[in-house]
Amino acid sequence: MKKLINKVENIVEEMCQGIAYAHGDLVKKHPTHNIILRADNSKQKVALISGGGSGHEPAHGGFVGYGMLDAAVAGEVFTSPTPDMVFEAIKAVNSKKGTLLVIKNYTGDVLNFEMAKDMAEMEGLEVDYVVVNDDIALENSEYTIGKRGIAGTIYVHKIAGALAEQGASLSEVKTVAQKVIDNMASYGMSLDACTIPANGKKSFEISSTEVEIGLGIHGEKGTHREELKSADVHTEQLFNFLVKHHKPAKGQKVALMVNGLGATPLMEQYIIARKFDQLAKKAGLEIVDFQVGNFMTSIDMPGFSLTMLLVDEQLEKLLKDKANTPAFKVVK
Amino acid sequence: MKKLINKVENIVEEMCQGIAYAHGDLVKKHPTHNIILRADNSKQKVALISGGGSGHEPAHGGFVGYGMLDAAVAGEVFTSPTPDMVFEAIKAVNSKKGTLLVIKNYTGDVLNFEMAKDMAEMEGLEVDYVVVNDDIALENSEYTIGKRGIAGTIYVHKIAGALAEQGASLSEVKTVAQKVIDNMASYGMSLDACTIPANGKKSFEISSTEVEIGLGIHGEKGTHREELKSADVHTEQLFNFLVKHHKPAKGQKVALMVNGLGATPLMEQYIIARKFDQLAKKAGLEIVDFQVGNFMTSIDMPGFSLTMLLVDEQLEKLLKDKANTPAFKVVK
Repeated sequence: MKKLINKVENIVEEMCQGIAYAHGDLVKKHPTHNIILRADNSKQKVALISGGGSGHEPAHGGFVGYGMLDAAVAGEVFTSPTPDMVFEAIKAVNSKKGTLLVIKNYTGDVLNFEMAKDMAEMEGLEVDYVVVNDDIALENSEYTIGKRGIAGTIYVHKIAGALAEQGASLSEVKTVAQKVIDNMASYGMSLDACTIPANGKKSFEISSTEVEIGLGIHGEKGTHREELKSADVHTEQLFNFLVKHHKPAKGQKVALMVNGLGATPLMEQYIIARKFDQLAKKAGLEIVDFQVGNFMTSIDMPGFSLTMLLVDEQLEKLLKDKANTPAFKVVK
Repeated sequence: MKKLINKVENIVEEMCQGIAYAHGDLVKKHPTHNIILRADNSKQKVALISGGGSGHEPAHGGFVGYGMLDAAVAGEVFTSPTPDMVFEAIKAVNSKKGTLLVIKNYTGDVLNFEMAKDMAEMEGLEVDYVVVNDDIALENSEYTIGKRGIAGTIYVHKIAGALAEQGASLSEVKTVAQKVIDNMASYGMSLDACTIPANGKKSFEISSTEVEIGLGIHGEKGTHREELKSADVHTEQLFNFLVKHHKPAKGQKVALMVNGLGATPLMEQYIIARKFDQLAKKAGLEIVDFQVGNFMTSIDMPGFSLTMLLVDEQLEKLLKDKANTPAFKVVK
């Protein structure tokens, strides 16, 4: 295993320190836990918390800041944070307006975040949550009952975060978060596995000519394997899954995202973006926002996912509102 | 070779289309050449142009937009753009205030950009240039007379771009660009080669336990190879080169950059950033800006470079001015 790390057991803590040191104007680290907190936490708004296993950077610590998250809880690599950790995050950012947890749909995450919610409620704090399940590749998977949560989670951070910033209530922020989830679909594929630091091994083996379609962000199984084809063919293949799911009307406004899984060169991501754009326009869709880059990664996996979010006027406006986080900025 | 591309000969054009499609609010593609242009080119300021071989994305197309570049010329992968292409870029963005070319110091780039300057001057356009040579690893290299230009080039885009945006003259913009170059040093290392699409082969062979120190952004030779050590050890090693070069006084203000070479997980980049920060503070330096991410890549190379820029009040202010480009944003 060739990695630029120190002791494997310190990876997450050192990474959180690095995020906090490098972006001290925007975020800080919780004094005792691997939690990234907003530096300017004024506690006058609904607090948004996300998190999960590490290895998906910049998710989620990179999305803490103005207009997005108030806290991101970083579990060990590909391991849910404990309920205690999530509870600490809630206590650190909770305001009188309450806290919304944005949970990616993995069994461990859902259990532990829900348990933290219970712990917080026992102390009289108001907490609610949404579960993101944008990955339409599989109905159930190795780690989930129901669909998995992947790159579309960033849209939930962005849109719910923008509404929270405006002073909306917990119920309003939850409603818009759920609206994003209900109008979003993602689909991924990969050329190779990632290498998990703890054991130094590739998460699966695949031949030098094959790709895995519908792959999850932990290297967990997708729908099938097939021969590697051109970028255009694979982009159209995933696009067709999204369109089959959404059945968007002509003229529908959409936000599109090409998400790199960690080791996919930006050059390739833009070649994919080109085709994604062409296909969406050919389908009569109106693209109002287009994100390209590494948002929800699988450590060092070469691959990508496409996300399509159907937007109305409210979602479009919130998506374009100012944001200032380490990994996602909207300049007004 | 496992890559998400279409025809190898179309990579750069399709990538440029992808950049333009995805970020149409900020940039557009030149109608006939692989040049990324600012969408809102008002021609009322000194124009800034950079570019070079492709494969270093987001450099340079990702840095076109408000407060940075007006055009980025994209040659074939690791190949200088032709003088004709650079001339087309000059014609597309030139204003009465003139144009500054920001050239990375590679023999081909310097020759071709200089030739384009001559062509433009013959048509009465005012053009000047600076040559970026921040890589202190080697005094001369395979592709250069003098030091190579690498990730620090982004600071030149940012700072000269901010001054140009304020309406400064060509001579003033050139002066500040040169000031950045004179106060900047970078040093890189790599765990493995990149794979060049045209031949599908790794740019060099290296054993599974070795790293190359002082490596260039095209996979060209560094100073030596040694056994892979911890992130902290390698970060300190490169940091020491920067400090030996700069000999900064205690209390010196600095901007720091950890630049990923394409396939280095953000997790590792932040572990490196943590140590970089600690070392800079221990040396009594005052960090006023800290960038972490993939700014100047080598396609899919796992590795990183560190850059240290000594800043005074002018450079600090310009660095923090608003910027809005696909890959570099400063929110005010």
